[in-house]
Amino acid sequence: MTLVRTATSDQLTMLRGIEDEIHSIARMVEQDQYCIDILTRVSAACRALQSVALALLDEHVNTCLLDVARADGVEREAKLKEASDAIARLVRS
Amino acid sequence: MTLVRTATSDQLTMLRGIEDEIHSIARMVEQDQYCIDILTRVSAACRALQSVALALLDEHVNTCLLDVARADGVEREAKLKEASDAIARLVRS
Amino acid sequence: MTLVRTATSDQLTMLRGIEDEIHSIARMVEQDQYCIDILTRVSAACRALQSVALALLDEHVNTCLLDVARADGVEREAKLKEASDAIARLVRS
Amino acid sequence: MTLVRTATSDQLTMLRGIEDEIHSIARMVEQDQYCIDILTRVSAACRALQSVALALLDEHVNTCLLDVARADGVEREAKLKEASDAIARLVRS
Repeated sequence: MTLVRTATSDQLTMLRGIEDEIHSIARMVEQDQYCIDILTRVSAACRALQSVALALLDEHVNTCLLDVARADGVEREAKLKEASDAIARLVRS
Repeated sequence: MTLVRTATSDQLTMLRGIEDEIHSIARMVEQDQYCIDILTRVSAACRALQSVALALLDEHVNTCLLDVARADGVEREAKLKEASDAIARLVRS
Repeated sequence: MTLVRTATSDQLTMLRGIEDEIHSIARMVEQDQYCIDILTRVSAACRALQSVALALLDEHVNTCLLDVARADGVEREAKLKEASDAIARLVRS
Repeated sequence: MTLVRTATSDQLTMLRGIEDEIHSIARMVEQDQYCIDILTRVSAACRALQSVALALLDEHVNTCLLDVARADGVEREAKLKEASDAIARLVRS
């Protein structure tokens, strides 16, 4: 319980930081600041979003795994395929 | 002139869309929605941020290139290294 | 059994294709062919390697999952952490 | 001259290293070694391929840039678009 709460709160803190960062980046574009400086911030925001994604995936694997393992064949297969697809989208994004 | 303005305005539109999206994703986390659904949105946001980065890079190559080509050796080398480094950060993010 | 065999044989076919492709790319570099053409082939090879990685991950999730779910706490945690770390390395590569 | 030669020779050394690595990875798959170990090697090979791509791009920007800047409008635009597209493929691979 406490563990899940901490995870959620960490993810929220990260997401809010990224939201603020995107807002600042938009202002930099508006003010016509130097592209390379903007680009550096965009790359860092991409990386921060990936960290949120990895944290979510981690949580998914740790909390949903046991349920999946206990599920019957058809549902288990569906859940595993769903997780694989999510990982593939992330790796290819 | 019009071209640059259009580019900037497209980038702003994209960035504001991403900012809203990150805000929605934070709400999904807060409401404890299904991780895979959140993850799908995060992957899409990553990809959208990459598109902004590619648009910025494109603009940089198209507008700064001539100036760079006309600059003297030392400055040119510095500018080229700066662009290469920005591309590398993006590819590795 | 047949399923696992097919997976392995698909992965081998892909890896051998990539090995041949890297060999051709090296020849293109040696013959000083046009960078952009070489780059296009390198990007495709990267993507092909990612597909192999995703296939391996898929197999891992599908075959090791049940064992992990049945393992005791300490071993399970270690296995889950190992899978998470592998996914993170892949997403960040 | 010497510079270009060194670049080419570095790229060849890297590509041959990657070719050997893919060959070893195929053998690991054949011998049914532990997926996570294979995955770790595949991620490293992906990253090595990216380094080759960045080196090629660097060389392209440094050697083709002046010619492009001196070209007339239509050809210049075509060359710039070609470089942008190559960067985009790499970022998205």
